Amino acid sequence: MIIAVDAMGGDFAPAEVIRGAVEAVREEGVEIILVGPEKIIEEELNKHHYPSDRISIANATEIIGMNEHPATAVRRKRDSSLMVAAQLVKKGKASALISAGNTGAQMAASLLVLGRLAGIERPGIATILPSPKGPRVLIDSGANVDTRAVHIVQFAYLGKTYAESVLGIANPRVALLNVGGEPNKGSESVREAYRILEGAEKINFVGNIEGRDLLTADVDVIACDGFVGNVVLKTAEGLAMNLVAMMKNRLRKNPFRMLGGILVRPALKEIFSDFDYTEIGGAPLLGVQGISIICHGSSHARAIRSAIRTASRAVKGDLVGRISKALNLEDNTQ
Amino acid sequence: MIIAVDAMGGDFAPAEVIRGAVEAVREEGVEIILVGPEKIIEEELNKHHYPSDRISIANATEIIGMNEHPATAVRRKRDSSLMVAAQLVKKGKASALISAGNTGAQMAASLLVLGRLAGIERPGIATILPSPKGPRVLIDSGANVDTRAVHIVQFAYLGKTYAESVLGIANPRVALLNVGGEPNKGSESVREAYRILEGAEKINFVGNIEGRDLLTADVDVIACDGFVGNVVLKTAEGLAMNLVAMMKNRLRKNPFRMLGGILVRPALKEIFSDFDYTEIGGAPLLGVQGISIICHGSSHARAIRSAIRTASRAVKGDLVGRISKALNLEDNTQ
Repeated sequence: MIIAVDAMGGDFAPAEVIRGAVEAVREEGVEIILVGPEKIIEEELNKHHYPSDRISIANATEIIGMNEHPATAVRRKRDSSLMVAAQLVKKGKASALISAGNTGAQMAASLLVLGRLAGIERPGIATILPSPKGPRVLIDSGANVDTRAVHIVQFAYLGKTYAESVLGIANPRVALLNVGGEPNKGSESVREAYRILEGAEKINFVGNIEGRDLLTADVDVIACDGFVGNVVLKTAEGLAMNLVAMMKNRLRKNPFRMLGGILVRPALKEIFSDFDYTEIGGAPLLGVQGISIICHGSSHARAIRSAIRTASRAVKGDLVGRISKALNLEDNTQ
Repeated sequence: MIIAVDAMGGDFAPAEVIRGAVEAVREEGVEIILVGPEKIIEEELNKHHYPSDRISIANATEIIGMNEHPATAVRRKRDSSLMVAAQLVKKGKASALISAGNTGAQMAASLLVLGRLAGIERPGIATILPSPKGPRVLIDSGANVDTRAVHIVQFAYLGKTYAESVLGIANPRVALLNVGGEPNKGSESVREAYRILEGAEKINFVGNIEGRDLLTADVDVIACDGFVGNVVLKTAEGLAMNLVAMMKNRLRKNPFRMLGGILVRPALKEIFSDFDYTEIGGAPLLGVQGISIICHGSSHARAIRSAIRTASRAVKGDLVGRISKALNLEDNTQ
C-alpha cells in the first residue's frame, strides 16, 4: 500500500512530517510518497535512516500557505505539494492522501481532484473523539456550514460506515448533537434529520445527545452541522489546554504543591492520554472518491504517523467502497 | 427593591431556593417575594431565622414540571409559581423574576407576560463565562435556534448593554463566535452579522473568535446563534465535570497519588473557583420588558443567592431602560 504525504503541509513541515513518514514506513508496513520540492525533501530525508525502497519523492514546486484562500489556491497552484498528492491518488499511484496543511485547501483539492461519491452533496470531516468509554466519531467537524437535514443524515451514514470499517465497531449507535433529548428539540434541519433517521432501517439511530453527553453518552457516531462541530471541537480543545496551563501555573506556587504535582503527574498523564489527538492522527474527509486524511496543523511526527496508520486502516477496510455500498442500499440518505 | 423568586423551580426546590432567598435578604439588602403553594413555603421558611418584614409569600397553586412542554404549560397553568412570579413583575409589584425551573417555560412566561422590547424579535439568554481573564458574556446561550443575521446583531447589542450596566465594563469588546477569524468565514447569517457589526458605529466590534479562544480572547461579549451557544456551554460543562471525575478516580489508585491529590487540592480549588457557575448565578433573558433571570436547574442556595445579586445589579443598573435606549440609538440592529 502506497500513501501520498504532503511533505510541506503543517506548522512543523517538512521536518516533522518527514520524520513521521519515516517512522510509519518502519512501523506500519506502508510505502510512502513524499510530495514537495525535491531538494528540500531529500535534504530532510538524509537526516534519517530509512528503507529507501519504500520512501520515494514526487516533486512539486509550489506550496499552499495556511492562510491562502482555499478555492483560489488549489486552482492557481496546480503544482503545489497538496494538488500533486491528490493527483497521485486520482491516478491510482497512491491509495490515500495525507496533509497537515491548509484544511480548506485540502477539502477543495479533494473535491476538485478526487470528486464526490455519487449521492453525496457535501462531504464531511469525521473526527474521532477519544473518551473514557472509547472512541466516538464526530461528523461533520468543520467542512460544511448551513447544512440541511439531508446533509446531516448523510453525515450519519458516512460516520456509521467509518466506525464500522476503520474502528471495527459492529452496528454503531448513531446520535444527533442537539440542544435537548426530545425529537422536537433543535433547529429545523436537525428536527427533520431526526425524523428521517428515526424511520431509517439500515442505521442504528439512538436519538439526540446534548453537549454535556459528548464524551459519556453510549454512542459511537455523533452527526451535526459543520459549524456546530467545529466550534464544539475547538471549545473542548481550548478548555483542555487552558486547564493544563492553569494547573501548571498554580502548582508552581509553593513546594507542597510542587511535590503534589509530581505525585499526581502519572494520573494526569493517564487522563490526557485518553484525549491525545496525536494518537488519533487525522480526520478523513468522507464522501469523496478516495481517502483524504486531514491532520491538525500543529502535528508533530507522532500525529503524522498515526494519520498514516488511520489511512492504512481505511484502505484495508475498503472505506470508500463500503460508503458507496451503504449509500446505494439506503434510499433515506437522499 | 423587591424580587420575585419562583420557590418551586429547580431540582432542589423548594428547600435550597428558599435557603438562598433567606441568605440574599440578609446579604444583598433586597426584599423577596417567594412564589408557590403557601403552606409548603411557610413550612420551609420556618426552618430559618429571617427578617419577616422582608420576605413575603405570594400564593400559587400550580407547579410547572421540568419536562413539561413550555408553551402549553404556561398557557394552561396560569396559577403556577412561575406565571404568578412573572405577573408580579408585570404589575410592578416586583422588579425582577428568578427561577431555576423549566427554562423553556420561563422564556415562554417572560415573553407572554412581560412581552418583548420594541425592536427585538427574539430575546436571547446571556450567560456569563468566568475565565482567568475575567467574566465574558455569551449570548444567545440557548433561547433561539435558526437565527438570522439580524438576531445575532441584536444579541450583540443586548450583550454589550448587559456588560456595561451589570458587569460595569466600559465600551465592551464584542465578538462573533465563528469557525475562523476571517470576515468571510462561517455560515451565511454569521457572515452577514459580521458585515452589519463592522459598519456599526455604536458598538466596539472586534471580529470573529473561534471556540478555542472562548476563555482566552480579549473580548467581553460573544454573540452567537442559540443552538451553537447551548451546545458549546454544555460541552464545556460536560468536559470539566468529566475531567474532575476522572481525576478523582485515578487519584484513588495508590497512596502516593492520594497524598499528591491532597497537596494539589488547593490549586484545583483555585482553578475551579474561576469556573464556578454558582458564583455567577443565573443568566438573564435579555430583550423582554422586565428582568427575568434563568438559573441552572441544579442550583443550590449559593447559586440562588448569586442570581438574586445579579437581579439586584440589573435593576440598579437600569438594564431594561438602557437596552431600550441602545436599541433606539442604533438603527443597525433592525
